[in-house]
Amino acid sequence: MASPRQLKLGAFLMSPGHHVAAWRHQDAQADLGADFKAYVRIAQAAEDAKFDLVFLDDTLAIKDTSPQTGRFSARSAFFEPITLLSGIAAVTERIGLAGTVSTTFNEPYTLARKFASLDLISQGRAAWNLVTSNTEAEARNFGDDPHLLHADRYRRAEEFIDVVTGLWASFDDDAFAYDKASGTFYQPDKMHVLNHKGVHFSVQGPLNVRRSPQGHPVVVQAGSSAPGMELAARTAEIVFTAQQTLADAQAFYSDLKARMSRYGRDPSDLLVMPGIFPVIGRTRAEAEDKFARLQDLIDPKVGIRLLSDMIGGFDLSRYPADGPVPDLPETNGGKSRQQLLFELARKEGLSILQLARRIAGARGHWQVVGTAEDIVDQLEERFTKGGADGFNIMPPTLPGGLNDFIELALPELRRRGLFRIEYEGRTLRENLGLRRPATSRFDTGRPDAACNDSVLAAE
Amino acid sequence: MASPRQLKLGAFLMSPGHHVAAWRHQDAQADLGADFKAYVRIAQAAEDAKFDLVFLDDTLAIKDTSPQTGRFSARSAFFEPITLLSGIAAVTERIGLAGTVSTTFNEPYTLARKFASLDLISQGRAAWNLVTSNTEAEARNFGDDPHLLHADRYRRAEEFIDVVTGLWASFDDDAFAYDKASGTFYQPDKMHVLNHKGVHFSVQGPLNVRRSPQGHPVVVQAGSSAPGMELAARTAEIVFTAQQTLADAQAFYSDLKARMSRYGRDPSDLLVMPGIFPVIGRTRAEAEDKFARLQDLIDPKVGIRLLSDMIGGFDLSRYPADGPVPDLPETNGGKSRQQLLFELARKEGLSILQLARRIAGARGHWQVVGTAEDIVDQLEERFTKGGADGFNIMPPTLPGGLNDFIELALPELRRRGLFRIEYEGRTLRENLGLRRPATSRFDTGRPDAACNDSVLAAE
Repeated sequence: MASPRQLKLGAFLMSPGHHVAAWRHQDAQADLGADFKAYVRIAQAAEDAKFDLVFLDDTLAIKDTSPQTGRFSARSAFFEPITLLSGIAAVTERIGLAGTVSTTFNEPYTLARKFASLDLISQGRAAWNLVTSNTEAEARNFGDDPHLLHADRYRRAEEFIDVVTGLWASFDDDAFAYDKASGTFYQPDKMHVLNHKGVHFSVQGPLNVRRSPQGHPVVVQAGSSAPGMELAARTAEIVFTAQQTLADAQAFYSDLKARMSRYGRDPSDLLVMPGIFPVIGRTRAEAEDKFARLQDLIDPKVGIRLLSDMIGGFDLSRYPADGPVPDLPETNGGKSRQQLLFELARKEGLSILQLARRIAGARGHWQVVGTAEDIVDQLEERFTKGGADGFNIMPPTLPGGLNDFIELALPELRRRGLFRIEYEGRTLRENLGLRRPATSRFDTGRPDAACNDSVLAAE
Repeated sequence: MASPRQLKLGAFLMSPGHHVAAWRHQDAQADLGADFKAYVRIAQAAEDAKFDLVFLDDTLAIKDTSPQTGRFSARSAFFEPITLLSGIAAVTERIGLAGTVSTTFNEPYTLARKFASLDLISQGRAAWNLVTSNTEAEARNFGDDPHLLHADRYRRAEEFIDVVTGLWASFDDDAFAYDKASGTFYQPDKMHVLNHKGVHFSVQGPLNVRRSPQGHPVVVQAGSSAPGMELAARTAEIVFTAQQTLADAQAFYSDLKARMSRYGRDPSDLLVMPGIFPVIGRTRAEAEDKFARLQDLIDPKVGIRLLSDMIGGFDLSRYPADGPVPDLPETNGGKSRQQLLFELARKEGLSILQLARRIAGARGHWQVVGTAEDIVDQLEERFTKGGADGFNIMPPTLPGGLNDFIELALPELRRRGLFRIEYEGRTLRENLGLRRPATSRFDTGRPDAACNDSVLAAE
């Protein structure tokens, strides 16, 4: 008997919580971004709760250094994700470790190696969230050139990921003989030199790190623009996304999965995991109170600055806060996020400040305020009606908001049979139900493909 | 009463031991380069023994991919140092964590951030070993261009380290207020934007990681060429070096320390720690037997290939192994190492194979085979006669060779009062006796300077 389909869960651990005013709230540890042991406690709590993974975003800059508003932002200092996840790997056993690294400001050999090393340290629990970086503040930390245009960033990313996955196949799983008697360390026919020569990169290889028990790290993406979706359809194994409604989520889900066949991929090779910002109370009134308290802590300047960042750095503080969102030129930032926000403001007739307050928690992601039943009803609906394979939980505060989800929502998810009681496997791929990548580039790694070959061969 | 001067010790953990044939020996774990938990046990053993630090070298490539010899080399797959050290940081408390990262194939913002994050994760135990990378194999993993010339690499490194230390001073130690009531996360006058515009780099800053309890990571260097020594005199806090004799060590030590005054630095701001490859037995005969067993495991092809790599990639396998070392053109590799080896071969009239076997263990570093007394006699002599402030122990095998040093040599060092019984402090700087760097770039950070100011102010 096949076990019932269960949803996957990520814990998106943005310090010190996703709400822009989180750090001022009593449920948040304001200095979490400088306290490794506190991060470990949170990751271990997520592991005890059997989350599939913890997820860390990244920004290669302090976005806001203005003397007027910068001082109010908790996103001014935080850990670099790969070092933090490597530390967490050492004191956890089963939870997946997903970190964000940009393809725009890195070299593929360096990135492939860092994640391969994390994957080996964690014994097969690493995941790489590919981003192309979308702010000018980041570009200014890496040279004089203006930031690459959106389309150029994606062309670079397309080639980047091929180099990375090629490097991850440098050695077959059984390449290392360690044969002390004969002196054979590895078998040369199981070592593959990449010799990549492309438009953006020239990388010889091989990579100097052994493959992990899960083959190579899981590939995560978040872009929802057209080039982002195409890249995801071809290469991603998890997509974090942001849709406000079930209908939008269903449309995105079926669109993305349909694109995969073009690349010879099965829809089950990719998990769609929308972000959700849950504010949970024992009653609806308690949940609404919690949310109102967070909203009360928003400094309007900080909220409008966050909104300005999210639409690609266009400074909205120069417009009346109570006036309408102006018609803005297209910027070079994240395309899909910008469009979502403008549509939201137009549809509901929001002022700048109202829009800023609206996105202060979930930053354009799906936001649900209610009881555990309310939240699980909505998760179940998206999951069973073709809108999601799982969810990336964005706690309003850390550690408080994650504890709320674990204590209140998880028991209800389990009561309905929607979430695991124990990990199914040891590696992240095993827990996510994702297949192990081919041992070399010339092997598809699909058990069914191998079966078909045998059938054909027998005919 | 001042405590007697004691020497500092690093454990140089090259997997699976420094001898080129180490992995074939029974005292080495052949797959150490893929076994995180084994590395943790070794680091914890070094911490139990009160070593100042563990040290990881790095190469951004598999140097030897030839089907003839590559398969015999254990240096084909190993952990990336910063991920490995971040993992080790989570399960150790006091030992320093020194990792090698190249200035030639990285961006200063990325490097500053990784080490700042490791420094915070470890609560002030990180150290960065600056290298400029010296092989063509590495260059071929990072683009089409030929490898930068030696002098150009050093010019880039000079600017690189200034950007990195500038970024490490982005926030004063007390910049973060975390004041929930007023909403002030950090004090803006304690945040510094670097705005670096140089020949090689343009980096705005500030860095988005908080300073650690030791201020910033300890800066380590190893180059002994003229530009390398000048860079070290200006910026390094530890120098790993390789001299064969006491006279050479004394000359290097006094030369380097003398250069520091040009940069307004005190000789005590820099520790000279030569590498030593110790083969230790309970008797001299036992030590010599141990060494002979390792030498017997050398495959001549592998030994000559290592020698070729060490002189900058010039292929010596095309010459008769029993013939003299030919006159070679100057290459673009590590200058100081090349010169040391050629001088050694000339002075002792060694054949290619003899020279290869000679460097198969210590790779041009100082090699001592003997009892614990023999080894400690030599360490004491170098330490007390102006040749060293401490030593970087290069175990022939891992874990076996490190355990030998801990069990046999350390008790003798302690009997003579030359090494600590307990850590003096919590941070690496405290244990090394290095001063904490200034809290901002405009403060010298010297307690005596501050005192002088007070005296002047009182006059």
